[in-house]
Amino acid sequence: MGYHEFTIEGRNAVMEAFRSGKTIDRLFVLDGCQDGPVLSIKREAKKQDTLIRYVDKERLDQLSETGKHQGVIAYAAAYDYAEVDDILNSAKEKNEAPFVIILDNIEDPHNLGAIIRTAHQAGAHGIIIPKNRAVGLTATVARTSAGALNYLPVAKVTNLSKTIEDLKKEGLWFACADMDGTEMYDANLTGPIGLVIGSEGEGVSRLVKEKCDFSVAIPMKGRIDSLNASVAAGVLCYEIVRQRRTTGKS
Amino acid sequence: MGYHEFTIEGRNAVMEAFRSGKTIDRLFVLDGCQDGPVLSIKREAKKQDTLIRYVDKERLDQLSETGKHQGVIAYAAAYDYAEVDDILNSAKEKNEAPFVIILDNIEDPHNLGAIIRTAHQAGAHGIIIPKNRAVGLTATVARTSAGALNYLPVAKVTNLSKTIEDLKKEGLWFACADMDGTEMYDANLTGPIGLVIGSEGEGVSRLVKEKCDFSVAIPMKGRIDSLNASVAAGVLCYEIVRQRRTTGKS
Repeated sequence: MGYHEFTIEGRNAVMEAFRSGKTIDRLFVLDGCQDGPVLSIKREAKKQDTLIRYVDKERLDQLSETGKHQGVIAYAAAYDYAEVDDILNSAKEKNEAPFVIILDNIEDPHNLGAIIRTAHQAGAHGIIIPKNRAVGLTATVARTSAGALNYLPVAKVTNLSKTIEDLKKEGLWFACADMDGTEMYDANLTGPIGLVIGSEGEGVSRLVKEKCDFSVAIPMKGRIDSLNASVAAGVLCYEIVRQRRTTGKS
Repeated sequence: MGYHEFTIEGRNAVMEAFRSGKTIDRLFVLDGCQDGPVLSIKREAKKQDTLIRYVDKERLDQLSETGKHQGVIAYAAAYDYAEVDDILNSAKEKNEAPFVIILDNIEDPHNLGAIIRTAHQAGAHGIIIPKNRAVGLTATVARTSAGALNYLPVAKVTNLSKTIEDLKKEGLWFACADMDGTEMYDANLTGPIGLVIGSEGEGVSRLVKEKCDFSVAIPMKGRIDSLNASVAAGVLCYEIVRQRRTTGKS
């Protein structure tokens, strides 16, 4: 997983980057510029503790890749996404049955980060997230992953159902985390597996669930509904670890 | 677990309440008062989205319990702590072997809330936290617990080591979460149990660890150090659930 920086230029693009929660490392602003949109961007930058540097027009022109900076250039950080094949290859290299986690619409970056951390520690080979709706690999995700994002491949796909179908052809079985499923201790979670986890509010979406081979449930003894998504992912991941260990089938 | 409101009066006390992270529901301020300390309090209140009401001196005098409000009265929310005995009684009532979680210096309210939620769902009878250093039952904890704080007793004790000694006399065995411990699948986690979990950075403190009967570890296959504290608590709690289920000893 590589880490790189890229520039965002122009008032609308920079403002949009702040609003979408992208991590802006540094903001270069035309010194003395008091235009409304630029002031709005500076306010946003201050709110997010982004480093602001005031520079003259010559410097901005130098930094600009597009030549259309309108007085603002932002440097953003980004982690690279992997391909689904990278995940399968990682399993192959380790001579292990694939252990993949599919996240259906996890929107909270802290949950995504914690799940990446747990998945890596549990020996999963990678995580697959959908292109739409879900949170991406922001700096908050990277920080919450406690460094695991540097080791665990995360792939982003257009259509989760389609990806599940493709992976079934590679021999994976899909277990959907669902309160109405088989209690996890009674399910067979050994062999090549894809564990599908939904968002806290809505669970796994119907279309994705229909593609799964079976559903697994964490027993709930309390009076509330569910666990935090990252805790649920952790509990299920380690039940997979236990079953693989017990049967020797990893 | 009851929920109640109490008033905090006077400039220093109110400012201190905001600074310590207490949840202030409403703030009553003397209308027109522009004193520096009162302005600071108002700034703090706005930062934390506390509802501010401007009232005249007569109204403040009416609301005041101490008669020394100095122009500011805050209404704070609080959850009641349980006693350790309440936790043991809860186990007795359910005719189950006690399952208690001891948190040694968990400082992050989100972690505490998530652990309360998980503990309740895993069927634990209560949580014990130390009086010093650890985070208390703030509104953030309540919210993150997703309602579980209303059902699970949380006790606060002065000396964790002493409490562990007392509970040993009640027949509990203490398992300390520790990376160098026995792999959890190989440990015997059935019967009356106290699970001790430390902070992410420092783990369980030496004095508390020495009081424990044994240490348990979650297997780590990744290249980083540990799991998020609430995920680790969840994984260990559910290994206890599994072993109790398998042996029928709960």
